Amino acid sequence: MINKLVIIGVGLIGGSFALALRKADKVKHIVGVGRSRENMQRALKRGAIDEIADDLSSALKQADVVLLAAPVGQIGGIMAQISPYLEPDTIVTDAGSTKQDVVAAAHSHLAGHLKNFVPAHPVAGAELSGVSAADAGLYQGKNLVLTPLKETSAEAVRRVTELWQACGARVSEMNAAQHDAILAAVSHLPHVLAFLLMNQVSSSTEHDSNEPLRADDPLRFAGSGFRDFTRIAGSSPEMWRDICLANREALSWQIDAYQKELTALREMLARDDSEALERVFTSAREARRRWLENKS
Amino acid sequence: MINKLVIIGVGLIGGSFALALRKADKVKHIVGVGRSRENMQRALKRGAIDEIADDLSSALKQADVVLLAAPVGQIGGIMAQISPYLEPDTIVTDAGSTKQDVVAAAHSHLAGHLKNFVPAHPVAGAELSGVSAADAGLYQGKNLVLTPLKETSAEAVRRVTELWQACGARVSEMNAAQHDAILAAVSHLPHVLAFLLMNQVSSSTEHDSNEPLRADDPLRFAGSGFRDFTRIAGSSPEMWRDICLANREALSWQIDAYQKELTALREMLARDDSEALERVFTSAREARRRWLENKS
Repeated sequence: MINKLVIIGVGLIGGSFALALRKADKVKHIVGVGRSRENMQRALKRGAIDEIADDLSSALKQADVVLLAAPVGQIGGIMAQISPYLEPDTIVTDAGSTKQDVVAAAHSHLAGHLKNFVPAHPVAGAELSGVSAADAGLYQGKNLVLTPLKETSAEAVRRVTELWQACGARVSEMNAAQHDAILAAVSHLPHVLAFLLMNQVSSSTEHDSNEPLRADDPLRFAGSGFRDFTRIAGSSPEMWRDICLANREALSWQIDAYQKELTALREMLARDDSEALERVFTSAREARRRWLENKS
Repeated sequence: MINKLVIIGVGLIGGSFALALRKADKVKHIVGVGRSRENMQRALKRGAIDEIADDLSSALKQADVVLLAAPVGQIGGIMAQISPYLEPDTIVTDAGSTKQDVVAAAHSHLAGHLKNFVPAHPVAGAELSGVSAADAGLYQGKNLVLTPLKETSAEAVRRVTELWQACGARVSEMNAAQHDAILAAVSHLPHVLAFLLMNQVSSSTEHDSNEPLRADDPLRFAGSGFRDFTRIAGSSPEMWRDICLANREALSWQIDAYQKELTALREMLARDDSEALERVFTSAREARRRWLENKS
């Protein structure tokens, strides 16, 4: 049980963490910190927080755990702001989608506090955002990756693990570079691919914003496969801009590898290589089947 | 009302056409032609057909309409087989996913019958196949594209239009090249992208077929966005091999354009161009929002 939890950024991620911990009866008092007064009022009303912080100094006083749940691009700035008020025993953790940049920011802004800093990433995407979409069940069965620094204490890791497990998450540990490489493959690259496809298909005809689709508009003929493929292209542009830049190296590596695969397939088409095409498609289908079986 | 409909290839597509026309009370007698005796018996049992053809000659006798619903790669061969038995007034149509190759095959194998040949494509993909998955409602609200030849009679087009409208489809007409270009963008390219992504993510670690995922396997961290993005990678490898080869030119064009976009994005990452990235993602999200609004 923790007595005081401070959540900085009470949106989908922070709000769901709060609701899940409350449901699991793991926390006594939750203080919310956020820029939008309106959103904080909503968080209060939904029962995600007990109190809206007036200032960081009083919010952080005697805090057991602080969760940084703001967008990845803001985490460094927030660390700098909280640093002067942090008490030595307060555990700080985050929920950013990339980890090497968060670790670097911690080295810059929380240098005296690394023992109690536990970088974390709940892998639970959603197109929705804001505390209104928060849900106590969001993390149930989802992956939560911890990427402790060599300075992070085992005790801090243990306590953060416990909290996320209470939310229903499956907790794993790895280093930040490994996390970023994996997420570049399974999340960041697919997002980029979906955004680009959406642009390519829609840019072949130009529209006024609310004009009906023309008879020859490719999008008129896009079906459910296209809809599912591009679902992640409905995600927040600002958030994805930040993630792509924060994880630029691993993502670039993935893009390069993918370009090679595309070029190889283009050549199979050019030389009419029906066997090679079938091999590519068969191995993909098999890999997906195995994945779905293993997941369940 | 048509008296005799012959369906060659009674799987998901042919079976659903049969069930829908029967439900709309548009056909008296349906004859099925197919290679798998087992599948034909299933079609009979499901009520999709009234009779399993013994031979093409008797099947085609006094047929009003013949639907070629076999995989795209087999359509040319089937045309050659039916051609000797076709009666002059019998309308022939198909359901192939690509149209320029079907038109070319018709010029080769149905040269004397072009007046009554109506190339068609019901844009209703599904990962399922076989007559067991057939459904009278499959075409409800879906697009059906006709790509008549210059030789095709208006009367033949009218009759095929009527049948598909009775199935609930929204019928449009365009030429075969235009159809193939549009489908390359909204369907064939996304399939290729999904197959390749699935391979790229799964090939980074090697598995025995049914071994559980290792702790560091990227697929362990793939979530619902990845699942939806790759859903179409569960499609039939043989079918997609045939479609990609049949529509090789338009697909190659789309791949080239897509590679240019990927390269441009790669460069935005390299030069840390956060504004350009946000523009790309925003325009994609907006395009998708417009599309979904226009669809409904």
